[in-house]
Amino acid sequence: MSSLSLVEQAKKSAAYQAVDENFPVSAKVVGIGSGSTVVYVAERIGQLANKDSFVCIPTGFQSKQLIIDNGLKLGAIEQFPEIDIAFDGADEVDPALNLIKGGGACLFQEKLVAASAKTFVVVADYRKKSDNLGIQWKQGVPIEIVPNSYAKVIQDLKKLGAITVNLRQGGSAKAGPIITDNNNFLLDADFGAIKDPKALHDQIKALVGVVETGLFTSMAAKSYFGEQDGQVNIWSI
Amino acid sequence: MSSLSLVEQAKKSAAYQAVDENFPVSAKVVGIGSGSTVVYVAERIGQLANKDSFVCIPTGFQSKQLIIDNGLKLGAIEQFPEIDIAFDGADEVDPALNLIKGGGACLFQEKLVAASAKTFVVVADYRKKSDNLGIQWKQGVPIEIVPNSYAKVIQDLKKLGAITVNLRQGGSAKAGPIITDNNNFLLDADFGAIKDPKALHDQIKALVGVVETGLFTSMAAKSYFGEQDGQVNIWSI
Repeated sequence: MSSLSLVEQAKKSAAYQAVDENFPVSAKVVGIGSGSTVVYVAERIGQLANKDSFVCIPTGFQSKQLIIDNGLKLGAIEQFPEIDIAFDGADEVDPALNLIKGGGACLFQEKLVAASAKTFVVVADYRKKSDNLGIQWKQGVPIEIVPNSYAKVIQDLKKLGAITVNLRQGGSAKAGPIITDNNNFLLDADFGAIKDPKALHDQIKALVGVVETGLFTSMAAKSYFGEQDGQVNIWSI
Repeated sequence: MSSLSLVEQAKKSAAYQAVDENFPVSAKVVGIGSGSTVVYVAERIGQLANKDSFVCIPTGFQSKQLIIDNGLKLGAIEQFPEIDIAFDGADEVDPALNLIKGGGACLFQEKLVAASAKTFVVVADYRKKSDNLGIQWKQGVPIEIVPNSYAKVIQDLKKLGAITVNLRQGGSAKAGPIITDNNNFLLDADFGAIKDPKALHDQIKALVGVVETGLFTSMAAKSYFGEQDGQVNIWSI
């Protein structure tokens, strides 16, 4: 068995365990995120006998597909702004369960779902574990902004200590900057090792032009990691 | 002479005086807002001999037209994020020069311009003067939000003390909610008399889903009002 299949098995085990240990029997509204480990979360939720008794709220296009593909009921957050439990991946997780998210450019909807959830559980692979945010995920904190504010926000982020700030480009997929699902731009701001993620988030979110940041603090209750050696590792607060 | 033409004359005098007393001779970048008094600001700036030596940044469609109609050079805030002086109207102004703006749904661009300006001067008619924000402008604080967050943000605003929150509708002009220039929705949240506009803005802006609020605090340096009796009244801090 290759090391890839060992870690893949661990991700599946982590996802199944996250669902089995946390899914409330009386759940009416469930948030489903995206990421390679969340695929197994949706698979496990799709195996529940009572899967017709709750609706699932997606965090973006990929998670909407996961919900549909697993025969779950799709709901809209406009109709169900109170979510019983949500599962999502992360780009980096520290021991206090602060997260960096937004590598996939869906951080706004992901944060809206997480902020609406009574319980928020992270599932990811071992590479997302970090002693300190900003060390493991090196491309910087993703920040969603109103497009015509980018010049000012880049200046303001540098005043807040950003070493580099990049307007995320579409590369070979799209000429010029990417456009988010909310018709906005994304900046990636590298602050190096982030000492106080909550304080940094508050400072960035307060800027004129900033819609949301990829710093998720005081949101996750637990994080399940699939390890390289096939084991499952659980962090909780 | 009717009372209407008296106040109209006062608005023109207020606007001309605002330009004459504040326009820096060396200005390179000038913000132009909108509103019935700002029309006279643009007219006065258009009379300046050196009007080819600066660019004007608009806060929306109406102000873009004002710039063009007065033969001024139109610029983009992406290229000129540092503005020497900006002039704009307001829906309500208190003696500390806190403002409510956003009646015209352009609050985001208006705040971006004001926040980018070294000096920000308000011009308005006497009806915008208020002892306390929230007393004079009764439809509530305009708040620009990401569309699919409206249900959650309405809940959160009520927790912050909003008496009523309305999703602004297009009325006879558009079925359903209005869409801002940034493809967002607008809420109007009535908090009654607002004791601490800065604290309220900070709380609202921190909410997931909120792009910007119509509370402008610590931004305006002076406010020029055209009075009903034909006089000009100046508030400064």
